[in-house]
Amino acid sequence: MGIKRVETSKRMSRAVINNGVAYLCGQVAKDYTDDIKDQTRKTLKRVEDLLKSVGSDKDRMLSVQIFIAKREDIQGMNEVWEEFINEGFAPARATVCVDFPNTDILIEVIVVAKVNE
Amino acid sequence: MGIKRVETSKRMSRAVINNGVAYLCGQVAKDYTDDIKDQTRKTLKRVEDLLKSVGSDKDRMLSVQIFIAKREDIQGMNEVWEEFINEGFAPARATVCVDFPNTDILIEVIVVAKVNE
Amino acid sequence: MGIKRVETSKRMSRAVINNGVAYLCGQVAKDYTDDIKDQTRKTLKRVEDLLKSVGSDKDRMLSVQIFIAKREDIQGMNEVWEEFINEGFAPARATVCVDFPNTDILIEVIVVAKVNE
Repeated sequence: MGIKRVETSKRMSRAVINNGVAYLCGQVAKDYTDDIKDQTRKTLKRVEDLLKSVGSDKDRMLSVQIFIAKREDIQGMNEVWEEFINEGFAPARATVCVDFPNTDILIEVIVVAKVNE
Repeated sequence: MGIKRVETSKRMSRAVINNGVAYLCGQVAKDYTDDIKDQTRKTLKRVEDLLKSVGSDKDRMLSVQIFIAKREDIQGMNEVWEEFINEGFAPARATVCVDFPNTDILIEVIVVAKVNE
Repeated sequence: MGIKRVETSKRMSRAVINNGVAYLCGQVAKDYTDDIKDQTRKTLKRVEDLLKSVGSDKDRMLSVQIFIAKREDIQGMNEVWEEFINEGFAPARATVCVDFPNTDILIEVIVVAKVNE
């Protein structure tokens, strides 16, 4: 019934689970390239792996916030996103453009997902 | 007990409900004008309609994130917002300025609300 | 079993609690200086006080979104943040750069925390 934390450092936990809901830390590609499709693919792969590691999966995402650095990257991001999502399982989503503290980052994703504790 | 999705496309669901909480996708005016008050009014009307369609209402909003494109629009947005909120039922709220992928958008709103399943 | 609201004005509640989860409104320093460490310290003190007032505490934060105005403030913010977090209790976290409606603000924080109702 308590809070479960996953891969907790001094700064953050990669995921925190409470009452059947997992909150993921902001996911980025880590291995950065200038290609939005490539960064989106790597970011979503990391989301998928992290969700699996906490007993969830991409079909149980509830809400996703997507932050992108460049307005013109929206189309490439959406293409990879729609390949990633299984039909009928899309979460609520919102996408806005921001700057990132690390200028190599083109996309960051915040995910809230259902998980069976 | 499972996840309920509303108006699910390849890209997103307009709302996802889990364990009595509804997560709405980013709400925008759709019919865009350059007037922040008008866009805010239309956006909040869409929030209200979507909440009703999932068995909730604006008095059960828990948290709202407001994104606006222009710093100077904060006052106009707040005026319409305060007309919209019923006294005693205001949610937790945070407002920051961002760019939107679609340059016609002046305001986007992310809502988490209580819903009786 | 209903929604509990804390310090509700026409515009927002400082916190809203539902089903054991507290959603805080965007927290800022209020007493602004140009020093990111100082603003971060004041902001996190306000987070801590607000969490206590709703029967939670900083060790039960689930997810935190940090918005900063200036990319170069990331390091100073992180230093204060890591002093604030008790070892083993770090929440999921994401940090992006945005503009604030109020140009005095260097940092704003959105917190979701567990609370025993």
